[in-house]
Amino acid sequence: MAHRRERALAVADAAGARSVAVSAPAAVTWLTGYVPDIETGPSPFALSAIAVLAEDANATLVVSEDEEEGARETGCEVVTYPGFGIGPLDTVANAAGALREALAGVSVAIDAGSFPAALTIDLEWIDVERDLAQARAVKDPDEVERIREAIAVCDAGQAVARAEARPGMTELDLWAVTRAAMETAAGSRLPVLADLVSGPRTADVGGPPGLRVVEEGDLVLCDLVPRVSGYWGDSCATFALGEPTEEARSAHARSLETLEAVVAEIRPGALAGDLDRLARAALDFPHHTGHGLGTSWHEEPRLVPDSAVRLEPGMVVAIEPGSYAGIGVRVEQIVLVNGAGCEVLSTHSLAL
Amino acid sequence: MAHRRERALAVADAAGARSVAVSAPAAVTWLTGYVPDIETGPSPFALSAIAVLAEDANATLVVSEDEEEGARETGCEVVTYPGFGIGPLDTVANAAGALREALAGVSVAIDAGSFPAALTIDLEWIDVERDLAQARAVKDPDEVERIREAIAVCDAGQAVARAEARPGMTELDLWAVTRAAMETAAGSRLPVLADLVSGPRTADVGGPPGLRVVEEGDLVLCDLVPRVSGYWGDSCATFALGEPTEEARSAHARSLETLEAVVAEIRPGALAGDLDRLARAALDFPHHTGHGLGTSWHEEPRLVPDSAVRLEPGMVVAIEPGSYAGIGVRVEQIVLVNGAGCEVLSTHSLAL
Repeated sequence: MAHRRERALAVADAAGARSVAVSAPAAVTWLTGYVPDIETGPSPFALSAIAVLAEDANATLVVSEDEEEGARETGCEVVTYPGFGIGPLDTVANAAGALREALAGVSVAIDAGSFPAALTIDLEWIDVERDLAQARAVKDPDEVERIREAIAVCDAGQAVARAEARPGMTELDLWAVTRAAMETAAGSRLPVLADLVSGPRTADVGGPPGLRVVEEGDLVLCDLVPRVSGYWGDSCATFALGEPTEEARSAHARSLETLEAVVAEIRPGALAGDLDRLARAALDFPHHTGHGLGTSWHEEPRLVPDSAVRLEPGMVVAIEPGSYAGIGVRVEQIVLVNGAGCEVLSTHSLAL
Repeated sequence: MAHRRERALAVADAAGARSVAVSAPAAVTWLTGYVPDIETGPSPFALSAIAVLAEDANATLVVSEDEEEGARETGCEVVTYPGFGIGPLDTVANAAGALREALAGVSVAIDAGSFPAALTIDLEWIDVERDLAQARAVKDPDEVERIREAIAVCDAGQAVARAEARPGMTELDLWAVTRAAMETAAGSRLPVLADLVSGPRTADVGGPPGLRVVEEGDLVLCDLVPRVSGYWGDSCATFALGEPTEEARSAHARSLETLEAVVAEIRPGALAGDLDRLARAALDFPHHTGHGLGTSWHEEPRLVPDSAVRLEPGMVVAIEPGSYAGIGVRVEQIVLVNGAGCEVLSTHSLAL
C-alpha cells in the first residue's frame, strides 16, 4: 500500500498539487483497500466514497455512516456524514462538509472524470485521472494476492459453466449457475462483467446472456470478470456442446496457439505494441490483444496497436486473442510479469 | 416524457439557468429513457452518460460510441465520442468535447453530486440535484407502466424464493434461483438491490445473502429491488420454513396489519409524516415507513418522521413496516396514488 500511495503523491506533486482526492471506486480501492458498492448505481444516501491522501499523513476515507464499518476495517482515518436514515436528505452538503474536514489544504489533484463537481467548490483542483490510472499498472504484492483470489473465483465459474451447459437450457439458465458458483466460491454476492453467448451469437465477439436456448453442437463463449474484495479477475473459454465442427476446431486451435505465442513473449521490457502485433499477425479480431487489470477491469498495460508501454515485473496482463468469422472463439489467460518472464495465474480449462 | 422535461426546465429556470445537464443514471433515464449500465461501476472507456435539455430543443444524449445504439433507440439527439477500442484512451477530453457540442450555452443546471468535475470546466453551473430529485416524485403514465413491469419481475422473484427455499441450502443458493427467476422474467440480466437473510440474521433488518445454511423453522426475509428497463421495482416478504413460532406469527400479524393500515390511508393530500407516525405508533422499527421509487430506488415521497410532503396522484410509494425484536419480519407493497386513494401494484404473497 505504501508503494502505491507514494506513486499517487508523486503524480500529484508533478501536477503541482499537495494532496490527492479520488472518487472512482478503482482509485479508492487502490489507495485504501476500501471497496465501494457499485452494483446498484449511485446511492440516494451518499456521494461516491472519497479517498484523500496527503504527504506525511495516513489516508482518509470520506464516506457516509453506512460505509463506516467497512471503511474502518482498512485502517484509514475515516470522516463520515449521515447516510441511510429517517432524517432529511442533504447528501451533497453533508459530503462537502466531511471532505473539507479531511482535506489539509485547497490544492488537490483529483480524478476529475468521476469526481463530483459539487465537491470541487472552493478547491484548487487539477485532473490527474490518466496519470493515476497509469500508476496502477505495476501491482504491489498484496494486490497480486487479491488478483489470485479473483482468478480462483473465475476458475470456479468456468468449471461450472463447462460442466453444467447442456442443450435445452437458456443462456440465462447457464449464467445463473455460473454466477452462483462464483458467488459461493467467494462467499458473497459479486459484481460481474460477463460475456455469455451461444451458437451464432458467438460471432458478435460477446454480449450478455439472454433467452436463447442452447442447442446441441453450439459453441458457448464464456468470459467471466468478477470483482472479489475490490480486485477484478478475468477469464475466457469457448467450448462446444457435443461434437465441434472442423471449422470450430480450426478456429479454436489457432486462438490457442496465438495465446500461447503471446504468453511465451511476456517478459520485462517487452513492448505492448509488439505483443499486439504478434497476435494480430496470426489472427483477425477487432479488439485488443490484452489488457492490465486490478482495481479496474481494463487498465495499463493495454496490448493494442502501437502501444509504447514496456512490460515490467509486477504487471498483471490478460491475454485474449479470438476469432469471429462465422463462429466466435476466444481463449484468455491472466499472467503476472516476473523477473524472468511470466507466471500464468489462470488454471481454467481452455479445451474446446 | 414531455411533462417531466418541462418540470426539469422549470427547475433550471428557477435556478437562473437556461439548460439542464445531468449525469446520474436516475436523472438520465428520467429525462431520456436511456438506461446506463451500472452493475460494474464506471467504465474505463467512458464517462457517465450525460443528458442535456434546453428549451425548445429535443433532449441530447452525450455518450460513448459503445452506448450509441441504445441512445438512438430513445429518439433523442445523440453526440458520441470514442469508446471501447484499440486506440489511445483520452476519455475525459473526448467526453468534454462531445458535451461542448451538445450544449447551447454555458449556463447550465446540473446534478452536481455526481456530475463529473472534468466536464464543468468553462461552464457556469449551478447544482439543482435535490430539486430535480423532488421533481421525479409524480410519475408520468409511461413511467407507471415501467414500474408495473418492474414489480411483475419482483413478484416472479418472490414466488420462486418462497417455493424453492428449503433447509440445507445456503442463502446464496436461494439467492441464485431467485435472481434467475427475475432475470428470466425480464429476459436479461438485471441490477438488483436485495436483502436476503435467514434465521437470526433477520433481526439485523437486512443484509446480503451469504453462506449461512437455512434451517427448518427459520424465517427468511426477502426484499427484492430489481431495475427493469430503467425503473426499479421493490417488494418484501418474510416467510417461515416449516411451522412458525408464536413469536413469529405475532410479529408477522402486526407487520401486516400496520402495512394494511397505512395503505388504507394513502390518498391525495395525505401527509407523508402522518403516514409514518401511524406506522411507528403500531410497530417499532429503525427505518423509514416507506419511500417513492422510479428511476432511483429511494426518492420522494419519503414516509419519514415530520415529512411535510403531501401525496399527489401519480406518486408511487413503497410501504414497508417491519419488526426486529429477536427475529425480523418485514412486509412491503407498492401502491400508486390515484384520484380516490390508491391502487396496490404488488401481487406477491405476504403470507408467513
